[in-house]
Amino acid sequence: MTATKAPHLEHDERARVGLMSVDEALASVLRSIDAPVGTEEVPVAEALGRVLAEPVIAPISLPPWDNSAMDGYAIRAADTEGVGPERPVVLQVIGEVRAGSRAASSVREGTALRIATGARIPPGADAVVPVENTYPSELGTLAGPASRDAAGPLPTGIELRAAVPVGGSIRSSGSDVQGGAAVLEAGVVLTPPAVALASGVGAARVTVYRRPLVAVLATGDEVREPGSDLGPAGIPDANRPGLVAAVRAAGGEAVDLGIAADDLEEVVSRLRQAIDQGVDVVIVSGGVSVGPYDVVKAAFDDVGHIEMWRVAVQPGKPFAFGVANSVEGARGALLFGLPGNPVSSLVTFELFVRPAIRRLAGLARDHLLRPTDRAVLSEPASKSHGRRTFLRVRAVRDEKGTPARDAAGRVRVRLAGGQGSHVLSAIAIADALAVVPEE
Amino acid sequence: MTATKAPHLEHDERARVGLMSVDEALASVLRSIDAPVGTEEVPVAEALGRVLAEPVIAPISLPPWDNSAMDGYAIRAADTEGVGPERPVVLQVIGEVRAGSRAASSVREGTALRIATGARIPPGADAVVPVENTYPSELGTLAGPASRDAAGPLPTGIELRAAVPVGGSIRSSGSDVQGGAAVLEAGVVLTPPAVALASGVGAARVTVYRRPLVAVLATGDEVREPGSDLGPAGIPDANRPGLVAAVRAAGGEAVDLGIAADDLEEVVSRLRQAIDQGVDVVIVSGGVSVGPYDVVKAAFDDVGHIEMWRVAVQPGKPFAFGVANSVEGARGALLFGLPGNPVSSLVTFELFVRPAIRRLAGLARDHLLRPTDRAVLSEPASKSHGRRTFLRVRAVRDEKGTPARDAAGRVRVRLAGGQGSHVLSAIAIADALAVVPEE
Repeated sequence: MTATKAPHLEHDERARVGLMSVDEALASVLRSIDAPVGTEEVPVAEALGRVLAEPVIAPISLPPWDNSAMDGYAIRAADTEGVGPERPVVLQVIGEVRAGSRAASSVREGTALRIATGARIPPGADAVVPVENTYPSELGTLAGPASRDAAGPLPTGIELRAAVPVGGSIRSSGSDVQGGAAVLEAGVVLTPPAVALASGVGAARVTVYRRPLVAVLATGDEVREPGSDLGPAGIPDANRPGLVAAVRAAGGEAVDLGIAADDLEEVVSRLRQAIDQGVDVVIVSGGVSVGPYDVVKAAFDDVGHIEMWRVAVQPGKPFAFGVANSVEGARGALLFGLPGNPVSSLVTFELFVRPAIRRLAGLARDHLLRPTDRAVLSEPASKSHGRRTFLRVRAVRDEKGTPARDAAGRVRVRLAGGQGSHVLSAIAIADALAVVPEE
Repeated sequence: MTATKAPHLEHDERARVGLMSVDEALASVLRSIDAPVGTEEVPVAEALGRVLAEPVIAPISLPPWDNSAMDGYAIRAADTEGVGPERPVVLQVIGEVRAGSRAASSVREGTALRIATGARIPPGADAVVPVENTYPSELGTLAGPASRDAAGPLPTGIELRAAVPVGGSIRSSGSDVQGGAAVLEAGVVLTPPAVALASGVGAARVTVYRRPLVAVLATGDEVREPGSDLGPAGIPDANRPGLVAAVRAAGGEAVDLGIAADDLEEVVSRLRQAIDQGVDVVIVSGGVSVGPYDVVKAAFDDVGHIEMWRVAVQPGKPFAFGVANSVEGARGALLFGLPGNPVSSLVTFELFVRPAIRRLAGLARDHLLRPTDRAVLSEPASKSHGRRTFLRVRAVRDEKGTPARDAAGRVRVRLAGGQGSHVLSAIAIADALAVVPEE
């Protein structure tokens, strides 16, 4: 990545100026989460995107019984012993078996039942002969040409001109899934194929982690509801709607705490309201810096304690993290104080809050972060010394939308627009955050 | 990718055996969609994941008025002309301006108003001097040390020891966004940052495409509701729950049509019910092959017409596509007949139905497919001649979950399990479909 080369800021130097690295900060946040949130049982049809808290155990085998792999005839293999082109055999067709129903009769010596793909093998039969290997034959007359399909009126007999092995064209019970086996492990996200698999083994309900409850509060005397009258000096709230959307996209359930004035009592009262309600996380935007009206730190100290709040990241300062005092023995809610600046707020959410929500939601530690790729930036960009920097970039794409790569396999990216930490338009159209290391 | 080399099956040869390529089939499906579905206006806070049908126009500029970039004092730059370390000036502090409120007084010659970051510049002022460049001074006495913060009681005066330019530390009205500008274009997906941007310019409601209505019907005499009594020869329905989940994940709204027997009248009646209800797409799983009880093609012919149904893909045959006769002048619903086999059903959905749903949902033609990457498979795999094959694979990952790449930048992948088209367990744990070309 092309970037102005900044002098390497060593860990010790960061510590001296009171800065924490991004990795240290994330590790500290994750250390505070000893286990995911509680679990609930839900219908599998409504479990898309949820994380399994318990494995899905197949109540039945798949297939549940031996069934036919082909449209054809269920027969006894012994009836075809020694059969060949010069020594054909004619079997009497005594009925048929459709998918979904049990055969009305068994297959006895010298007989056959027409059978559809997927239908249950009838008693007495131990093989299926595919329809295209059979020749309809009125008993006692010469056989016609080989059958092309398995529709139409039943012939009274079929001629076979080759031996059929025991088990031929039969898919045996349990060959896909054995009853009692764990078909999906705990920690798996229920994607559409996982929903299909759980449904296919007849597991109608699954035990998943509930969605973490995440409260979002905006602060600022100047912050107004978007679309409302701004008065002489108000600005519309960008952070709370953006963070509520980010919480949902991360798999959390958002609790909207509205907008609080820069007033300690008001902020504390809204925090307590959320904590008493049992939320797992509280996010507050704005009010975390050192200005005269920044009350969030004081409010966090009132309801719990602050763990750390200076991270070597750009954009993203200031950032506060803490844990609320627990209510009724439950774990204390995680408290995140994000910058009031909307770009910093979203980047800080991405780096520290989203992994925490995903961990609370039951995802494994190696599934908390977004996939990364190597990229090369086609423009110069600058950054602060010793801070890990996250540039808002867009991939160069072909007409199918596939990202273009250079000869070394790196994705070619451009800046998505102005990189000032107040420029929301660049992050709104960005495909990715490009990580520029501290050094 | 390591794969058994199959002889190249030319386009002409595919045509001769009645097979269509995957690309031809997808192009044919997309050609039938002349425009996305209709639009609706929704609150931006509920628009996450939706596609903009109209650009978002900023009703206001951002910032809406000149504001302070720093905690400091709003002053008249002219009062600092010629000021230097040896020629300081003392200004009378006549009050303060907090964020969110209008100043009670103007800044007149020789005076200053303390101002918070983000607060509106008061009348009369044309510059801000940051608090750390000011020295609190009781008028008529010597100034103290430079201020470190902007809290606490107001000093009666401040001493300045450097000139301040006009506009210094002021973010001017409209410097981020000009009122009337399109901040988000039509066709953009409302991600969390896009929600933040629209909210930040005060656009409380946005015009988006409605979610395409997609009806899902399972067919098969043997197919039963998962969790219900299977009787002597029933199997639980995997396809409909999987497809309903896939529809939702693709951005559609799913309409569950239940399970129909392999009976033309019943299938037609459920299709008509969905079409009369105004759905945009109907997906039917099962009953599309050439067996005696496969009624879906006949049903599609009854309610509309079939466009094509043999594609050179593995897994994925058989596949039917058609368009229903239009109801009351509206566009006819798209009709997809997917294989009854659950893996084939999901792969066919991915290849043909998902892009169609995304196009109907308003996404641009270069945003219909998933991102692709180059990959290398560490095991041998085989495929059919002349068919594009989609293997279910998992990426090799490091402990952070980042996919491992080889020296050429290709993602290292392994087969996710058995590649038989009935093996749901492999697709349920797969990260990706590996595309093995026809040749």
